[in-house]
Amino acid sequence: MNKIAFQGQAGAYSEQALRQHFGEKAEAVGFRRLAAVFGAVESGHVAQAIVPVENSSAGSIFETYDLLSEHKLTIVGEAYLGIKHCLLALAGATRGQLKKVYSHPQALQQCQGYLDKLGVETEPFFDTAGAAAWVAEKQDPALAAIAGKWAAKTYGLAVMAENIQTYAHNTTRFLILSKSPVKTPKGDCKTSILFEARHVPAALYKCLGGFATNGINLTKLESRPSQAGIGRYRFHLDCEGHVDEPALDQALRELQFYTTSLRVLGSYSQAKIPE
Amino acid sequence: MNKIAFQGQAGAYSEQALRQHFGEKAEAVGFRRLAAVFGAVESGHVAQAIVPVENSSAGSIFETYDLLSEHKLTIVGEAYLGIKHCLLALAGATRGQLKKVYSHPQALQQCQGYLDKLGVETEPFFDTAGAAAWVAEKQDPALAAIAGKWAAKTYGLAVMAENIQTYAHNTTRFLILSKSPVKTPKGDCKTSILFEARHVPAALYKCLGGFATNGINLTKLESRPSQAGIGRYRFHLDCEGHVDEPALDQALRELQFYTTSLRVLGSYSQAKIPE
Repeated sequence: MNKIAFQGQAGAYSEQALRQHFGEKAEAVGFRRLAAVFGAVESGHVAQAIVPVENSSAGSIFETYDLLSEHKLTIVGEAYLGIKHCLLALAGATRGQLKKVYSHPQALQQCQGYLDKLGVETEPFFDTAGAAAWVAEKQDPALAAIAGKWAAKTYGLAVMAENIQTYAHNTTRFLILSKSPVKTPKGDCKTSILFEARHVPAALYKCLGGFATNGINLTKLESRPSQAGIGRYRFHLDCEGHVDEPALDQALRELQFYTTSLRVLGSYSQAKIPE
Repeated sequence: MNKIAFQGQAGAYSEQALRQHFGEKAEAVGFRRLAAVFGAVESGHVAQAIVPVENSSAGSIFETYDLLSEHKLTIVGEAYLGIKHCLLALAGATRGQLKKVYSHPQALQQCQGYLDKLGVETEPFFDTAGAAAWVAEKQDPALAAIAGKWAAKTYGLAVMAENIQTYAHNTTRFLILSKSPVKTPKGDCKTSILFEARHVPAALYKCLGGFATNGINLTKLESRPSQAGIGRYRFHLDCEGHVDEPALDQALRELQFYTTSLRVLGSYSQAKIPE
């Protein structure tokens, strides 16, 4: 069995990342909700899943962080995908005909500069690929979608404009999830940790001390509100190294002293960030 | 002149927060985009603005953080609003008639549990108040919106269900923005700082050292991707105290040594978090 889950419908950026990471032979299974993707891994319906966790323009994807904390899955890898938003419309449609552009609110925001110049109305959609499917279904040359090339191919739409996002460097980081850890990863590793700090003065500073004094580089620190109320947080921390290495092991022992909960989500091979 | 800008249309939670903070006499001016709200303060079109910065369930509002870094406004206050999502429909409409619920994707997500039980289709909208206005305009008893009581009052809709969000404690923190600092705030203060760390080992740990050793409590630390690419961040830090106090002044001097840029966004009176 080589079923891999992703969030979205056919043509989504997540499906493109899945193909890039797992190749053509994997069977891609799309779910409308991220929670269902986590559930599919947990139930054994799929072998693994690929979920977006951070975009270089829009920032962290909160829902993924929250689901990581709610479910007991293991992070077994990471992958990066360069996001190149395209304006997709019916073949033969012209820019002058365009009246309305559909897409995910985040994609609309990332292309705001381009859309302002185009002077069209925008309308939010649950996902970019769904917007492309909608435009293909409506067969109206006044409608367009912002989505990836992969969606244009999936739904037979024409690419009217390419790479229309305001910031050229638009990269999404994905995590690969599995029910149980895989065998020791290769090369340089990264480790993801989830913790809640004890209520002591300078708590976060103390929590980071073990990493600083054992020479462990942090690559990401994200705080998420604890459901206990505003002003209470849990922390998602990514750092270099594998939990089996003595320096990281020591850093985690020191961290534990200052936390009320601590969970290692996984150690996995570092992926290369695309240029 | 007492014009105050907010993002959204009449009936928005932001307008409700504005009324709560500034009272009935202020002239509320709504803008569709947050960027326009910042622009209105900058140009002097309005005296101040109130913008959402964090929600206890959904987390930080990235767009606000990014606009704070792009514009040179001063934070002169904060305010909290308890968010109580309601299901709004036409007067006389019954639950059995409902087919589709419109709202902002974040509100739909916060009420997911309730909506799943209701078994209706959901559709994203730019904002909660806009969804309420749409339902009022359509005059179709099969449609409903998730929005606040304030929106029900504004658009003459009936409240079918109240407080339908999954987590009872749903609070949004707002910032009050002005073009220039106001006179010394009263009572306990908070200070907001924006910085980029130097590229040195354990940079963030070193940046936080001045706060830890000078007894300054952090209330929030948010990292936002720098447009330079994935893995590069700027930090938004909130702490207790006023920049004029010696301990915070010393902490900032120590912080400055480890930063490539540092800006104090404002010192302002702490607001009380609602129960």
